Parts: sequence; structure tokens; C-alpha cells
Amino acid sequence: MLALAGIPLGLDFVFLDPSPSAPARAVGRHIVAAYDDEAALADLAAAASVVTYEFENVPGRVAERLAATHPVWPPPTALAVAQDRLEEKRLFERLGIPTASHVAVASGEEARAAAGRIPGPALLKTRRLGYDGKGQARVEGPGDAADAFAALGGRACLIETLVPFSREVSVIAARSPAGEVAVYPLAENLHVGGILRRSRAPAAAGGAVDPARRAEAYARAILQDLGYVGVLAVEFFEVEGDLFANELAPRVHNSGHWTIEGAETSQFENHVRAVAGLPLGAATARGHSLMLNVIGTSPDAARVLAVPGAHLHLYGKAERPGRKLGHVTVRSDDPGALEDAERRLAFLLPPREEEAR
Amino acid sequence: MLALAGIPLGLDFVFLDPSPSAPARAVGRHIVAAYDDEAALADLAAAASVVTYEFENVPGRVAERLAATHPVWPPPTALAVAQDRLEEKRLFERLGIPTASHVAVASGEEARAAAGRIPGPALLKTRRLGYDGKGQARVEGPGDAADAFAALGGRACLIETLVPFSREVSVIAARSPAGEVAVYPLAENLHVGGILRRSRAPAAAGGAVDPARRAEAYARAILQDLGYVGVLAVEFFEVEGDLFANELAPRVHNSGHWTIEGAETSQFENHVRAVAGLPLGAATARGHSLMLNVIGTSPDAARVLAVPGAHLHLYGKAERPGRKLGHVTVRSDDPGALEDAERRLAFLLPPREEEAR
Repeated sequence: MLALAGIPLGLDFVFLDPSPSAPARAVGRHIVAAYDDEAALADLAAAASVVTYEFENVPGRVAERLAATHPVWPPPTALAVAQDRLEEKRLFERLGIPTASHVAVASGEEARAAAGRIPGPALLKTRRLGYDGKGQARVEGPGDAADAFAALGGRACLIETLVPFSREVSVIAARSPAGEVAVYPLAENLHVGGILRRSRAPAAAGGAVDPARRAEAYARAILQDLGYVGVLAVEFFEVEGDLFANELAPRVHNSGHWTIEGAETSQFENHVRAVAGLPLGAATARGHSLMLNVIGTSPDAARVLAVPGAHLHLYGKAERPGRKLGHVTVRSDDPGALEDAERRLAFLLPPREEEAR
Repeated sequence: MLALAGIPLGLDFVFLDPSPSAPARAVGRHIVAAYDDEAALADLAAAASVVTYEFENVPGRVAERLAATHPVWPPPTALAVAQDRLEEKRLFERLGIPTASHVAVASGEEARAAAGRIPGPALLKTRRLGYDGKGQARVEGPGDAADAFAALGGRACLIETLVPFSREVSVIAARSPAGEVAVYPLAENLHVGGILRRSRAPAAAGGAVDPARRAEAYARAILQDLGYVGVLAVEFFEVEGDLFANELAPRVHNSGHWTIEGAETSQFENHVRAVAGLPLGAATARGHSLMLNVIGTSPDAARVLAVPGAHLHLYGKAERPGRKLGHVTVRSDDPGALEDAERRLAFLLPPREEEAR
């Protein structure tokens, strides 16, 4: 989707992806190799004038190595923060951004002790390599904390309080090398089993408080602090009007896919504009948008496109349970039309029981 | 642009284009060969489940040959009509669509005689292989008609009356194999030296008459008559509220490029949906759009993108005088914002003197 947005700007793309069937192969030269393959990195470096990434588990040392000779955006420091949940929490705290209280734990015994100090259930999360609900487990109390720690591989973890949120929201923002910032309207997200299923944007206003304004201020603080260039996503829990930062992603984000149709400039185009040093486009919404993920199995394209206003985005990936294969966006000036569309596209959402888990 | 719209629908593209630097090379496999190269056509046929084209000077016999084994859309009959200005005029007349009065001429002597019967200046046009103002000449009277005929290569021509139009408009419409039709709002076009420079859409209403409604009816008649599948463009001259069809194009059209940002579904996506047998998307406008062509020389991307709302589309073509290298679209809910944008993008338009030619 980055290349689809960047090709019209006159840019060429070269991709390094270890999967021979990477979606990007359709829109540029594809170097099939491990992220840390020396020859592949030399090939990439020779071809590229600027380097970016859209997966936060790219090895940090690879970003650092390329940054010695090329602009690498977002900056490797942002990647390092995003790769370690403890560093992420420290960043939030340093910038005065509320986040769930937490303790770092390095052993089953530490996990048990920490769970004992947290009232009620908690979440145990590996510090590294987590995404889409991977690398985390719910802990009911001290009794199951050590087992959960072992089940997550005995790796360094955080244990954090469960936030009793009323909804999940996220903000997407872009920053250019010149310091120009564009912030998209807040999206309201539904996750099931740790996987994003639905985003609506702009999120409904939060009553007396203004979560969108608060989220924008937090995003701007992070962009500024990290000397960030490119698109950043920050996910929040909303609790009685307060926002608690859950995590950040140093890349274009699934909760911003609605911007292709629903914003004046998509997150993909603004990411490309930012890393290429071009002026950013407006991040204003065009009406209201509903985004539903396509998970696990590919729907019949004709069935999706028969729904008025539906736009289908398939990524060319093979089917696999829990895998994000694509998404569908419906945009309308009339929010009521989106409710109709969601009813007609309900086959993309998980059954109610799963949703209620 | 067709592939950029079709890749998200899960489709793969293979291109046959004789130019090694064809823009499409960035988004699919590119077979570099003449349009009538037998081995290349066999390669294309083996790879494709459906065939389309976006240049009306593809040899008609090639479309016919592929149609023996594959769906070829738009139908080869539409291509045949579009390739011969006389057939085009006959179609318009058969369907009751007003068009400039005209005479077929096959020699300099016939051209001279026909020019003598037309009051005032006329246009001499080759029946075949005309586009972007190529293959036509203005004739002041019988005195210069034979020379003009010779200058156009002594090929079969039409001579037609000059239509004293108040403006040029065009309609873009799509039809699916199931007979579903989507018609875009009318665009108002400015040509200079035979080359489209600017489109605005939706075109301002025409006072007492409703040219958009009339154009839609004409487009629907043509689609129906030709058993058409895909996107069709029809260009008109508007004369005191009446529309005179000038020509049709059996393809996505430059005067519909604004639909990428400015319509709910772009002409490119609807063409792909149609030829792939998928339901069409809405052709409704999202606000107001201004499209300016990039002709001859590539502008500085940063200068274009610094204009609020500007979207840049470069085709990856080398610079050449008169060549269409890309376009810029600005979309806004506020038509006044487009006037500002056009002033700031005036460097894309030709100097006033040229415009007044």
C-alpha cells in the first residue's frame, strides 16, 4: 500500500522481505532474503536513496547499519522503543502520557510476586516481539503467573494492570523532516482475540472530554521527542474520558487503513511523502469511514463490492487462520449509511460469542 | 493507473506494450513487443483470463484475434468504431446524438469541393489514427483544402463544420457484463493545441438546459448499442445548451482522471471491476475537483504538493514537448478553494497567448 501510494509520486520501490510471496512483489523489485542478510542489505542500500520499514520486528541492528549510509525513517531510536514494551512505557511516562501501571519481571518468581501486588487480574506481556495479541497472556492472580511466564517462553516480561476501558482508540500522525506534522482524526477500534477487526473514524466525540485533542497532543509530543519522520500510530484505552497509551507502532497502521478512501491524503501517501522529504498532505477526514479487516479466509470479491460504497483491498496473501488478508472500507457523508453497510458486511466480523470474549 | 486500482482487488496484471519504458512496467509483468507480435500475443493470451486495452490505436485485428479465445473488453466493435471517425459519426447519427455536419473525402479534389460547400472555416481530420489533436488541420476555405489534405498524408479524411462551442464537456460511463451502468458527473474541459490541459468536475450546470442529463442519456445509448463493457468516454461541444458529440474513446479517459480523488469509485477501478465482471462502484462526486495535466516537462514534486489539497500523479515517462507526463488533482468541498489552487498551480498551464489560440 506504500508503493501503491508512492508510485504516482514518481518514486520507485525496492523491497527486502524474506517471504517469496510478500504482497509487495507486485509493485517493485523484491529481494527475497532474511532481514539481516548482508548481501541483500548491500543490494538494498545500493538501490535505495532512503529506507523505511513497515514491520516493527525488523532487527534494530539492521536499521542502525543502514542508517550509517542512508536516511532511515522512522529513526532507529523509534524502532528500538517500539520493540521493547518497557522502553515504550518509559517513553510514555517521561512525556506525561498516562499508561497502565506495570512492573518488569524477569523470572516466574518475580511474575508471581508482581501479580500478588496487583489487585485483580493482570496482563503478562513479553517485552519484545509482540503483535496482534501474540506474546501476552491474562493472569488471574499470583497462582497462575509463574506458569504464564513459562508459557511465554521464560523471556523478560512486563506485568501490567488490566485497564477497564470503555473503548479503544488510536491516533495516526505523520511528521516530515522539516518538522511539519499532520494528525488524522481519532479512530475507534474493535479488537477480538488481540486482532483488530473494525475501525470507525472519526471516532464519536467523547462527551465532556475531547479524546481526539488529547491523543493529538500525545502524538505530537512523541513525534517531537523522537525526532520522528514518517507515520506513527499510538493506541489508547479510553477510561471515563481519560486516555491510557497502550502501545505505539513506528509505521503505517491497520487502524489507519480507512484513510485511503476516508481522508484527504492517506496514511500511506503521507508516510511516503514524509520519508521522501515532500510536503505532507491534509489529514482531514472525508466524511465518515468504516474499516473491516479480512481475517483468515478471502471473501468473494463480488459479494463485498455489491455493498454500496464498499472498497476492497486484498494483499495477495495465502489464507491462514488469524491472518490479515485484506480490508474493506466504506466511506460516507452519512454515518447512517455505514450502519447499513456494516450489517451487510457482517460476514467479515467474528461471531458474537467470539466478540464477547 | 488501471493496475494501481486493480491490484487491491486481488488481480494480477500482464502488459503488452512496445515501449521498454512503458509506465505499466512498475506494476506487473511487461511484455515488450509490437501489438501484433504473434509470440507476444500468445504469451499474453496464456497469462490472461480477460483482456482490455487503454489506447485506441491498438490494431483492431489484434483485439479480434484475442476475442476468439478470451473476453476482450471493451468489445472489438467499439474499438473499430473509435478507430474510424466516419464510423463514429455514423454511430452518433444512428443513435440521434447531434454531431458536427461532415463529409467524407478521399482526395484533395474532394476536400476542395467539400470545403466549398461549408460556410466559413472547417476542420479536416484523418479518419484513422488521430488523438491529442494529431491528424487534423483547420481549413479556411476551398483554397487551402487540397494542401491540407496532402499535409495530412493524403489519407481518407472527414471534413466537418467548426462548432462554435461555448465550452467542451465530457462524460465518463462504465458498464458491466450484467448491464449495470455507472455514469460520472460531467467534466468541463480546456484543450490547448488539441491537448487537454484542465478538467473541472462536476461541470457547472448549464442554466435552463441540463447538459449532464443529456450527456448521460447519450452515453447510455452508446453503451447499450455496442453491448459495451468497461469505461467509455464521450467528448461534446456545448452550443447554447445543446451538446454536439465530438468523439468517443473506448477506454479510461484523461478527462476522468479527477475521479481518483474526486469520485466515490475511480474510472480506473470501475473499468477493472467491469472487465473482471465485478459489481460497479458509485460514480458520485466527492465534492468538486480540478485536474491539471503535466505536459512536456516534469514539475518539482515538492512545489506541486505544497499546494493544499494537491495530489500528484506522475506516469514515469521521459520528458518530451507536448507529452502527457502526469496530472495533478485538487479536490475540495468548497469550489472557492479550487480557484486558489488553480492560481497556485498556474505554472502547469500554458501561457495565456497559447491558451487563446
